[in-house]
Amino acid sequence: MKHFASLLLAAAATLALPASAQFAKPEDAIKYRKASMTLMAAHFGRVAAMASGRAPFDAKLAADNAAVAEAMSKLPWAAFVEGSDKGDTRAKPEIWSDSAKFREANEKLQGEMSKLAAAARTGSLDSIKLAVGPTAGACKGCHDNFQKN
Amino acid sequence: MKHFASLLLAAAATLALPASAQFAKPEDAIKYRKASMTLMAAHFGRVAAMASGRAPFDAKLAADNAAVAEAMSKLPWAAFVEGSDKGDTRAKPEIWSDSAKFREANEKLQGEMSKLAAAARTGSLDSIKLAVGPTAGACKGCHDNFQKN
Repeated sequence: MKHFASLLLAAAATLALPASAQFAKPEDAIKYRKASMTLMAAHFGRVAAMASGRAPFDAKLAADNAAVAEAMSKLPWAAFVEGSDKGDTRAKPEIWSDSAKFREANEKLQGEMSKLAAAARTGSLDSIKLAVGPTAGACKGCHDNFQKN
Repeated sequence: MKHFASLLLAAAATLALPASAQFAKPEDAIKYRKASMTLMAAHFGRVAAMASGRAPFDAKLAADNAAVAEAMSKLPWAAFVEGSDKGDTRAKPEIWSDSAKFREANEKLQGEMSKLAAAARTGSLDSIKLAVGPTAGACKGCHDNFQKN
């Protein structure tokens, strides 16, 4: 799993580069970033459910779900392209006007998601429990500052 | 890339098992399967654009995009859960009433997406060109039979 996760991460990181982002229209970029957040939330949610006892713990499922969530955490950011601040989106203007802070919040989330995936690879439910809170906090931290209610 | 792709595939295949599908509500399943199709289409589309000459060919980007598209091609099916035939979906009733045929169409798509990813790993644009058509055909084949207009 270690090798898998590092390679998956490398591929996702490549795809996160602005140069690889090709969206014909701003609405395509909005749809893409929402889709990657939806998948990230779904797979993170399954790990969080195990951590809180709402779902039975399965070490392999936890590791696979965390690995996919980690890869998904790389994808949305390249889709915050210029002109995609309007339309079917709750993105705040600060994403573009305070892009350094937005980038920092993205990186915080990616870092926590990576720590969670690493914890899940150990197969220890206790390690997963310790990592879930800060990951959820990083999701919330970015939403609080950069997403309209 | 070969090792990466096989491991990514293994993880995605695990997550595709019905036992791993945990959706609190039918609308969550609908949102999830749409999101995975959106990402599959976006990443497949970037490979197809290179194949048709609409985008410059970059072997690494083609391989990474095809690998993510291949992984995404495993995810939607577990989300066609009972009761998710209503709501914000164009899913036809035949998905559930003719589930053997639906499964066959899913597997056809997954097989073509895997062939495309394998072609992309060779770095040969000609091989990619040969694989893109059948993959697009498998997308269309399933939509024609199982998606409302």
